[in-house]
Amino acid sequence: MDKLIECIPNFSEGRNQETIDGLVETAKGVQGVTLLDHSSDTNHNRSVFTLVGDEDGIQEVAFQLVKYASEHIDMTKHEGGHPRMGATDVVPFVPIKNITADECVEISKKVAKRVNDELDIPIFLYEDSASTPARRNLAKVRKGQFEGMPEKLLQDEWAPDYGERKIHPTAGVTAIGARMPLVAFNVNLDTDDVTIAKKIAKIVRGSSGGFKYCKGIGLMLEDRNIAQVSMNMVNYEGTPLYRTFETIKFEAKRYGVNIIGSEVIGLTPAKALVDVAEYYLQVEDFDYNKQVLENHLI
Amino acid sequence: MDKLIECIPNFSEGRNQETIDGLVETAKGVQGVTLLDHSSDTNHNRSVFTLVGDEDGIQEVAFQLVKYASEHIDMTKHEGGHPRMGATDVVPFVPIKNITADECVEISKKVAKRVNDELDIPIFLYEDSASTPARRNLAKVRKGQFEGMPEKLLQDEWAPDYGERKIHPTAGVTAIGARMPLVAFNVNLDTDDVTIAKKIAKIVRGSSGGFKYCKGIGLMLEDRNIAQVSMNMVNYEGTPLYRTFETIKFEAKRYGVNIIGSEVIGLTPAKALVDVAEYYLQVEDFDYNKQVLENHLI
Repeated sequence: MDKLIECIPNFSEGRNQETIDGLVETAKGVQGVTLLDHSSDTNHNRSVFTLVGDEDGIQEVAFQLVKYASEHIDMTKHEGGHPRMGATDVVPFVPIKNITADECVEISKKVAKRVNDELDIPIFLYEDSASTPARRNLAKVRKGQFEGMPEKLLQDEWAPDYGERKIHPTAGVTAIGARMPLVAFNVNLDTDDVTIAKKIAKIVRGSSGGFKYCKGIGLMLEDRNIAQVSMNMVNYEGTPLYRTFETIKFEAKRYGVNIIGSEVIGLTPAKALVDVAEYYLQVEDFDYNKQVLENHLI
Repeated sequence: MDKLIECIPNFSEGRNQETIDGLVETAKGVQGVTLLDHSSDTNHNRSVFTLVGDEDGIQEVAFQLVKYASEHIDMTKHEGGHPRMGATDVVPFVPIKNITADECVEISKKVAKRVNDELDIPIFLYEDSASTPARRNLAKVRKGQFEGMPEKLLQDEWAPDYGERKIHPTAGVTAIGARMPLVAFNVNLDTDDVTIAKKIAKIVRGSSGGFKYCKGIGLMLEDRNIAQVSMNMVNYEGTPLYRTFETIKFEAKRYGVNIIGSEVIGLTPAKALVDVAEYYLQVEDFDYNKQVLENHLI
């Protein structure tokens, strides 16, 4: 079975249809790759592409898209609501099938090197590819944005991982890295007291002592008048969905509150949910790759 | 997205390697089809092929395999432990993706007609394709086996669905039909009393008043000295796995017995387990086809 990798590059252009069309054409022109989705936001002036492909194809399409963006997007003229530092702002690689997180790190480094060698754009490696803990977090890497990057690159701790300490004049700086697939998972509570959802979010999220691979906040669903624990599961193998679900359930009980439902937003790998079924059905010795029919079809 | 259909033809040859190789070559020679697996049993003198393909490919490969079998397997000389009535004994079509059970019934009928038109083999439609309730069950259709078929076809109620009331002299009779994917699902109990497993199997299986799409028996796992409810879930949408699991759990409690684990044997469609996760996580409005990443890759 082929290795399958997902790539979700973010470009700093969400308004100029000609440039967006050019990116789509570029994506479709690479063999071994499928463009699953692309969406553009005019307020953010930003486009997000979702691609999947084999090991060679995904590297080639990532490079070609960064190249096209560097030739058609001028960051000195860019305005938009979303933080950004480059024509191609960020390029994550995500392991989907028959490939490890470590192999995706290697892929991200190969693409980073090629982008810098051939296009002279400085690169920060982030997330699982980060060279220091401080660079794991994209928000920290991007802080200062395009306008602040010339100065930031001169700071001791912010030499790029590839390239010299100066931005590409129009394409800025790009972050490239590997990360696990993200599952957006929300749990709804039968209470209109948002403080309960906030307290529980604090318990389950890694940053405040909860599960390492869970990010979470408490918020109100105003239209339904209920509180919600809204989570990003950034590694569903490290922190499975059922574990946060059961924890929210027993923590909510302290307040006499029950779970009334949950939401999985957008795309999820099947395995994130099959793992949940295995837990609840107490399945012994299940081999996901061999026993799930669809894995023999991809 | 393409429609995907599985086909699992059974051939009455499990010893002659040349014929088996010929069937494999035939399967591999059809476009739009993948041979996932094939296994031969010398005691049964029978081979089972697992193929998956698009709408055109799966019909073509089914026909070509039946044709090859009719030219290379002589039922007048066949011996083996498994009941059988034809060179190609049975050809089930199973909906996998973007296709309904009804569409698979149509496919089975097209293949049945072509096999009879071109090869002169009489066909019984069975399972979801059956023309009468008595023909749904393959065991009833096949009763009498190859040797008894000439006489059986002359009985009032056993005219073939396609073809005349006489067998193909060497290829016999073939059953063709559509059915849902089958999931082999066993639940293990912390008791060495097999009568408890037998009582619970009777409760959950459709034939004795339980869930329509569940077949089940109680048996001992001698090596572990525990009792097991062993089930075939013949339509995991009609009777989801979690429903039998929870029923076994609350029925076992009456005897002070608990579930200690379960087993999913062999291949399962991902959806059979994702449905389980949806139930336990109480997921609202999940769209399996759109939200499961892999569905965009197949």
